[in-house]
Amino acid sequence: RYGLAEKEDAVGVVTGLAYTSVGGDLLSIEALRLPGKGKMKTTGKLGEVMKESIDAAASFVRSIAPEIGVAPPRFDTMDIHVHVPEGATPKDGPSAGVAMVTAIVSVLTGIPVRKDIAMTGEVTLRGNVLPIGGLKEKLLAALRGGVRTVLIPEENEKDLREIPDNVKQGMEIIPVGHVRDVLAHALVRTPEPVEWDEAADEAARAARASGAQSLAKH
Amino acid sequence: RYGLAEKEDAVGVVTGLAYTSVGGDLLSIEALRLPGKGKMKTTGKLGEVMKESIDAAASFVRSIAPEIGVAPPRFDTMDIHVHVPEGATPKDGPSAGVAMVTAIVSVLTGIPVRKDIAMTGEVTLRGNVLPIGGLKEKLLAALRGGVRTVLIPEENEKDLREIPDNVKQGMEIIPVGHVRDVLAHALVRTPEPVEWDEAADEAARAARASGAQSLAKH
Amino acid sequence: RYGLAEKEDAVGVVTGLAYTSVGGDLLSIEALRLPGKGKMKTTGKLGEVMKESIDAAASFVRSIAPEIGVAPPRFDTMDIHVHVPEGATPKDGPSAGVAMVTAIVSVLTGIPVRKDIAMTGEVTLRGNVLPIGGLKEKLLAALRGGVRTVLIPEENEKDLREIPDNVKQGMEIIPVGHVRDVLAHALVRTPEPVEWDEAADEAARAARASGAQSLAKH
Amino acid sequence: RYGLAEKEDAVGVVTGLAYTSVGGDLLSIEALRLPGKGKMKTTGKLGEVMKESIDAAASFVRSIAPEIGVAPPRFDTMDIHVHVPEGATPKDGPSAGVAMVTAIVSVLTGIPVRKDIAMTGEVTLRGNVLPIGGLKEKLLAALRGGVRTVLIPEENEKDLREIPDNVKQGMEIIPVGHVRDVLAHALVRTPEPVEWDEAADEAARAARASGAQSLAKH
Amino acid sequence: RYGLAEKEDAVGVVTGLAYTSVGGDLLSIEALRLPGKGKMKTTGKLGEVMKESIDAAASFVRSIAPEIGVAPPRFDTMDIHVHVPEGATPKDGPSAGVAMVTAIVSVLTGIPVRKDIAMTGEVTLRGNVLPIGGLKEKLLAALRGGVRTVLIPEENEKDLREIPDNVKQGMEIIPVGHVRDVLAHALVRTPEPVEWDEAADEAARAARASGAQSLAKH
Amino acid sequence: RYGLAEKEDAVGVVTGLAYTSVGGDLLSIEALRLPGKGKMKTTGKLGEVMKESIDAAASFVRSIAPEIGVAPPRFDTMDIHVHVPEGATPKDGPSAGVAMVTAIVSVLTGIPVRKDIAMTGEVTLRGNVLPIGGLKEKLLAALRGGVRTVLIPEENEKDLREIPDNVKQGMEIIPVGHVRDVLAHALVRTPEPVEWDEAADEAARAARASGAQSLAKH
Ligand SMILES: [Ca+2]
Ligand SMILES: [Ca+2]
Ligand SMILES: [Ca+2]
Ligand SMILES: [Ca+2]
Ligand SMILES: [Ca+2]
Ligand SMILES: [Ca+2]
Ligand SMILES: [Ca+2]
Ligand SMILES: [Ca+2]
Ligand SMILES: [Ca+2]
Ligand SMILES: [Ca+2]
Ligand SMILES: [Ca+2]
Ligand SMILES: [Ca+2]
Repeated sequence: RYGLAEKEDAVGVVTGLAYTSVGGDLLSIEALRLPGKGKMKTTGKLGEVMKESIDAAASFVRSIAPEIGVAPPRFDTMDIHVHVPEGATPKDGPSAGVAMVTAIVSVLTGIPVRKDIAMTGEVTLRGNVLPIGGLKEKLLAALRGGVRTVLIPEENEKDLREIPDNVKQGMEIIPVGHVRDVLAHALVRTPEPVEWDEAADEAARAARASGAQSLAKH
Repeated sequence: RYGLAEKEDAVGVVTGLAYTSVGGDLLSIEALRLPGKGKMKTTGKLGEVMKESIDAAASFVRSIAPEIGVAPPRFDTMDIHVHVPEGATPKDGPSAGVAMVTAIVSVLTGIPVRKDIAMTGEVTLRGNVLPIGGLKEKLLAALRGGVRTVLIPEENEKDLREIPDNVKQGMEIIPVGHVRDVLAHALVRTPEPVEWDEAADEAARAARASGAQSLAKH
Repeated sequence: RYGLAEKEDAVGVVTGLAYTSVGGDLLSIEALRLPGKGKMKTTGKLGEVMKESIDAAASFVRSIAPEIGVAPPRFDTMDIHVHVPEGATPKDGPSAGVAMVTAIVSVLTGIPVRKDIAMTGEVTLRGNVLPIGGLKEKLLAALRGGVRTVLIPEENEKDLREIPDNVKQGMEIIPVGHVRDVLAHALVRTPEPVEWDEAADEAARAARASGAQSLAKH
Repeated sequence: RYGLAEKEDAVGVVTGLAYTSVGGDLLSIEALRLPGKGKMKTTGKLGEVMKESIDAAASFVRSIAPEIGVAPPRFDTMDIHVHVPEGATPKDGPSAGVAMVTAIVSVLTGIPVRKDIAMTGEVTLRGNVLPIGGLKEKLLAALRGGVRTVLIPEENEKDLREIPDNVKQGMEIIPVGHVRDVLAHALVRTPEPVEWDEAADEAARAARASGAQSLAKH
Repeated sequence: RYGLAEKEDAVGVVTGLAYTSVGGDLLSIEALRLPGKGKMKTTGKLGEVMKESIDAAASFVRSIAPEIGVAPPRFDTMDIHVHVPEGATPKDGPSAGVAMVTAIVSVLTGIPVRKDIAMTGEVTLRGNVLPIGGLKEKLLAALRGGVRTVLIPEENEKDLREIPDNVKQGMEIIPVGHVRDVLAHALVRTPEPVEWDEAADEAARAARASGAQSLAKH
Repeated sequence: RYGLAEKEDAVGVVTGLAYTSVGGDLLSIEALRLPGKGKMKTTGKLGEVMKESIDAAASFVRSIAPEIGVAPPRFDTMDIHVHVPEGATPKDGPSAGVAMVTAIVSVLTGIPVRKDIAMTGEVTLRGNVLPIGGLKEKLLAALRGGVRTVLIPEENEKDLREIPDNVKQGMEIIPVGHVRDVLAHALVRTPEPVEWDEAADEAARAARASGAQSLAKH
């Protein structure tokens, strides 16, 4: 059973690209936002490296929260669940990092992800996109699945020489160097930043912490 | 010992279908709601993949809570226990996902599940139903156990060609694409939605969180 | 060393029946109620399946709490410890489920268990009794140990054909289909139900949860 | 290096008896009471069965707390640390149960343990003493170590036939059936009971729990 | 793919040096500060020894907090995430200790790390720098990656004899004995100390703890 | 690389003695006190037995806290981190117990440890010093490392016969039977005891616990 591109723009659903011993495949990544206390749940038989890539994606997104319109305290009032069907198939590796970031941003902002886009790339804690393996197999799977646009790491651009022409002509292949480029291509609209004074917030939280003391003394 | 269909409509009890090296079998899935703090307990020698399918089912149900008449804060006042007898038999796999969703919705709403129905299908975090393996063995087990109606994934409809006619004539086999279709067939009545303003709730919870600060300052 | 029936009616002490590669044996199951916060502790070199059977027994008992005279909030003020001597002998399997339920109900209600009774049977989350293996060996161990009455699962009744007559004549063997039958035979008196309005309780707890908010605002 | 009997009566120090493939040995068991929150810490390379025997000992002691002069709420204000030197030697088995109970009672009551006594026996959750293995080797180790009195399980009394006369004449060997007998012989004085109304306490704690609600409503 | 020196001075990004069976490599270490409660998260397929070196680095930094301008209570209002890309490559060993300290100090103070510097050395809990292995391979990797300055442990200075002249002439190699020397070379400016009276703080926290008591009594 | 004695008296730094298959070595043990909540962190690739020896050391120190001038509640306001460099070398065994106690006492009292002393010995929960193995190799390592004074367990005194004369003449070797002797030799000055009424403290804490109730009722 081959993966297919999504049928409509949806919030929190992103198409990643997997590369295994039997070839490439589409990976449908789903994120859900639930009322909670800032926890991250992951399911779908994910290996340690993929779970860590979700952790890194979440920390990166949290570090740019105001830029995507999310006031940081909101993180403490919600849990996020990231699931990668099909649940019986083991998945691992860091290359779904950009897809994880995109799914988390989409679910936080409520902005849908373009249905006909797929992406691959490891993400650093600063949002830089690192190269991945299996580019050819991943692109073949994307083409087969009806994907129109594929985002790949800039550092993999040199590998496009080895990709058959029909693949390169059948889809738009866009090299990206930072997650900001990914979001610009993948979300159907640009998030509005919010003002956020980090120093003021930290001071307020420190005051609140010592406020427990004031309460005790009044 | 072969599994049998349930003897009466009951709340939180659903018949799933298992497929093992020795053939198909009915799987009686039980959910119980207890006063608590929003935790999920699972028992019955369940493998990691089946436990994850319960996690995904629970998150999906939580995400559609108002639609089934459950105000989200109620989740914080109850625990849910999902048990799959027979406790000495190992069970695994994602294909009981639709049964898990149905058991959880039944126990949350108090609406009984039809006694003569069985079901199989993996569930995504959006409630889509994914295809499963062992369709033939599962249908044979359902027929043998006295089941009248079986819900199967839409994507498995093409596999019905290989199923013997006596099986297809002995039961109603209904392909389903989304959990909403599952619930429509499996519950004895339709849940009433409740109004729920998510943004207002999040604002209230944020106010409450900073209220601890106000308390300290008064 | 063969197990013997208990010497007197006691609270929280139940005789189960084990079946191992070297034959049947009596299993003395002990429960203790301690001031606490609703935790369950288990000891006695118990395998995962037996631990899960205790979890399921505890959830079932909690679900029928008012019926046995226990107001549900009391669970949050006590811990329960279930121990199965002899501590160096590994024990496993789900068939002590009915004994676990009985021990927990006895310790919660303070009603003693009849000293000359033994029992075997898996329990579902709804309190139904499922069949077990090793019936013959278990009954022989019960007879040898001086047991007068043995409770067995209804679904094992058909296996009594293969049991020697002297065994069947030496003890009263009672098939049971639900834990209510077990409790009726095993406890020295019937628990008095308490009134309990679950919906009112849930509403009260929800009010309490949002009360933290009111407190902050006054 | 052979173990020796303690040199003076001390609080929380008890001599147990071990039996390994290389013979018997004395086991010095140490308990310490620390300000805390009711936790139990165990060290000394203890196997799972010995750790469980400490858990069972602790629950038993807690269940008889008023009888030994300890008001149950005091358990929530202290931690207990049980250590078995020599830390590099693995220890396991349930037979140090009576010594664990004695060490815990001594440290809770502040009553010293007689220096020239040793003991062996598994303990149930009701304080009954179960038989142990290696009686001969344990008694030889006790004699060699200068022990004057040895407490053994009643059910091992029959095994004394096989013990050499010089061993039986060199020490007082006392069979015990319940931990109450153990404490009577091992502690230098008898603990004074305290009055404790369990029902009143439970009611008070329940009131306190719902008091949080009252606080919120005033 | 060989590692390269960073392209610009950045906060929380430090270049370490790894030594594996296939030679030396640059290791880009990233730290991020997030609103939180004093937790440390680590990702990047790190082995136990490297995780422990991050723990030790964090404790050391906390112990010198006032010296780098960080009032200790601020630690309770933030989490730190340390990530080492590339996430699929296992990393281990203590020799990134100095880089971990530098990344944590940079992220806490907001002072950028010089882009053209790399470093290696184990760190003790007092900030002393211990020698490392693979000096030659690490220096070759640094040269190849465009690094201008390399900090090495003083105790490795004697090993410079075996390093080819072109390597020693291509970069400035600075032996360091304590983390203070590391920070002096690696940060683009010196942190300003803050006044901090540890005894007063401890007294205040003790008062606060007993204040809960006063509150209860007023 | 052989270990060397410390270069100056320092707080929380103690020289232990290790004995491995390749001979003896000095072990530099570091303790650090941090603002916290009474937790113990250990790093340095320590085996379970060495970690347990740190737990036992910490409980012993806590039990004698007033004797070394530390009021017990202070333990709840600090964490302690014990680290044993070199982080890539596995360490295990109980014989660093006396060094652990000394490091913890030093860091709690702020009293430095003499720089030219080394020590070895297991510690019981009462502070007694138990014998160790590898005495000869440990003493050779101490001599080679420039140590002037070595503390050894009293029960190892008999093994000094087998130690070469040049070793015994090159250092002062002091047998110790209890940790009090260790501290007397190792700390540069004697800690001042504080008055501490344990019973009064327990009563106060009990009152505080029930005070939560009073608060709710006012
Ligand atoms: Ca697929
Ligand atoms: Ca991948
Ligand atoms: Ca079956
Ligand atoms: Ca399945
Ligand atoms: Ca037995
Ligand atoms: Ca069993
Ligand atoms: Ca010994
Ligand atoms: Ca034993
Ligand atoms: Ca590389
Ligand atoms: Ca390294
Ligand atoms: Ca060394
Ligand atoms: Ca050692």
